[in-house]
Amino acid sequence: MCEANAYLLKDGKETLIMKSVDTLRPEEKGIYIQNIFGEQKTIKARIKEMHLVDHRILFEEYENK
Amino acid sequence: MCEANAYLLKDGKETLIMKSVDTLRPEEKGIYIQNIFGEQKTIKARIKEMHLVDHRILFEEYENK
Repeated sequence: MCEANAYLLKDGKETLIMKSVDTLRPEEKGIYIQNIFGEQKTIKARIKEMHLVDHRILFEEYENK
Repeated sequence: MCEANAYLLKDGKETLIMKSVDTLRPEEKGIYIQNIFGEQKTIKARIKEMHLVDHRILFEEYENK
């Protein structure tokens, strides 16, 4: 399977926010993500970088200090 | 390998713009994509939807009529 793990970068630290993400869709309220287990989340962040071969999506908070 | 094919939605039609995308990174001038063969492109579009299990990234032009 080719899903990816989603991490959020905040204050220089990465936190895993969802494993095995399949679907990602920018929406009005944030970025909607859903994984292969049916878990859903809308996160208020932007995409910083994705590396699909490494199964990695990195999000970044909107506001940086 | 878990790369995805990138399509651009324009006037209701999808066009394949890059096969086997590994890296994706929003930048100032657009979205930078690079595939596993080292090809690079910066596209002036936004992400509409991604389905990683289906190996699919769909971009959409900025301006919609």
